[in-house]
Amino acid sequence: MDSMMMDMMSKDMKSMPGMDMMDMSVMQACMDACSACEQACTVCSTQMMDCAPACMNCADMCNTMMRAMMRMQGMNAATGMAMLDACIAMCQQCMDECMEHADMSDVCKMCAQACKACMDACMAMKNSMMAMS
Amino acid sequence: MDSMMMDMMSKDMKSMPGMDMMDMSVMQACMDACSACEQACTVCSTQMMDCAPACMNCADMCNTMMRAMMRMQGMNAATGMAMLDACIAMCQQCMDECMEHADMSDVCKMCAQACKACMDACMAMKNSMMAMS
Amino acid sequence: MDSMMMDMMSKDMKSMPGMDMMDMSVMQACMDACSACEQACTVCSTQMMDCAPACMNCADMCNTMMRAMMRMQGMNAATGMAMLDACIAMCQQCMDECMEHADMSDVCKMCAQACKACMDACMAMKNSMMAMS
Amino acid sequence: MDSMMMDMMSKDMKSMPGMDMMDMSVMQACMDACSACEQACTVCSTQMMDCAPACMNCADMCNTMMRAMMRMQGMNAATGMAMLDACIAMCQQCMDECMEHADMSDVCKMCAQACKACMDACMAMKNSMMAMS
Repeated sequence: MDSMMMDMMSKDMKSMPGMDMMDMSVMQACMDACSACEQACTVCSTQMMDCAPACMNCADMCNTMMRAMMRMQGMNAATGMAMLDACIAMCQQCMDECMEHADMSDVCKMCAQACKACMDACMAMKNSMMAMS
Repeated sequence: MDSMMMDMMSKDMKSMPGMDMMDMSVMQACMDACSACEQACTVCSTQMMDCAPACMNCADMCNTMMRAMMRMQGMNAATGMAMLDACIAMCQQCMDECMEHADMSDVCKMCAQACKACMDACMAMKNSMMAMS
Repeated sequence: MDSMMMDMMSKDMKSMPGMDMMDMSVMQACMDACSACEQACTVCSTQMMDCAPACMNCADMCNTMMRAMMRMQGMNAATGMAMLDACIAMCQQCMDECMEHADMSDVCKMCAQACKACMDACMAMKNSMMAMS
Repeated sequence: MDSMMMDMMSKDMKSMPGMDMMDMSVMQACMDACSACEQACTVCSTQMMDCAPACMNCADMCNTMMRAMMRMQGMNAATGMAMLDACIAMCQQCMDECMEHADMSDVCKMCAQACKACMDACMAMKNSMMAMS
């Protein structure tokens, strides 16, 4: 995400109850990983390999997750955790399916890497949210 | 969802391993409830009341959930459960926020009802998936 | 769209400048056709036939169009016309590609029909908007 | 977009009829501008100012445009032009509405800048596509 826009968002969040403790660098990394994963999955899904339905699901879930982090006013702790779990699960599945084609397709290999990075970033975000409560 | 398209989807799913036991009427009801909830939340978010961020998050999550059910080839049981949990949590939060305005706004009241219906439909879908395994 | 929610939306729109002349039944038909087309295209794209990229594009465009009609406060006449043209063009292309498989796949056949219906509904919406200005 | 994924996409596109002449740096810049604009508009829409409906429409249109460029197999020249026109029109409107609040809100100011950058990138993409035909 653009760094100046991120600064604005951070300032807004500091004024939300319970959000002043959020590590904004963890959140920014998570939004960026979701965005990169949506893009990788979208490209991967056009290959018409059998991972395509998982890639399409993962692209949608990552976009929804990214946007939700940009609208933290509309997410409480319970909702945030459940959405992160869903995003982690979807990335795990997409990564597993794409890894099976990693030898055949460099796009699948990179998609699997983007899914792994997104999973890791979502887990870091969960840890960060748990440390706050 | 269009009933003829639903029949096609059902036929496809019957040939997927583990999916032949799925109660398609439960799934159709869940897709329709997600679609209705996305629409209600989208309208509600234009009111610029403080429920708007939750409504936008809920609209995105419901659309992602609906599409994922149309691409069951790309969801395993664990992913499906996690996504349904996320959708239930998001609908719960949006319903709670809109209910606080139900006396002031008929749109909020209807949005809360659409969220409740979507939560119930997602829970029925979870029960149906659990009965299969 | 749910008829009670539609009534609320209509009432809101009557109070927007220039929107009091809008034929709400034309607009409702267009939103419903966009929603049906998004669903048909989403199912069709999971078949992994060569129409899939067009189907995915069409599903996204139809969802964007549907939501934009639910947020008419955020669309002026020029924007509305350009978005309807884009939706019509995308539906046309998806219909053409799916029609080539209509003999092989009933899903493609129904997807093409949903695209045709969405094109027609978008053209009726354009005519309705032009009559207003 | 990730540069290695972009390289893969470029290689794929070189093999599509009529696409071998596409200037991939123009296309990459356009996808990146759409992504940045979706993010800026999503943040801006949570401010609950009167630009919010336009911001939400613009976020959806930019995401649809970005994804469509990642699935060029599913866009012909006519569809691409119509979608770019719709994206330009939506960005123009959102920029105009946010500029009216630029003195009051730094987020609106940055959102307007992101819209302007996206408009310019879409126009460059149109020029690039026209030069090909």
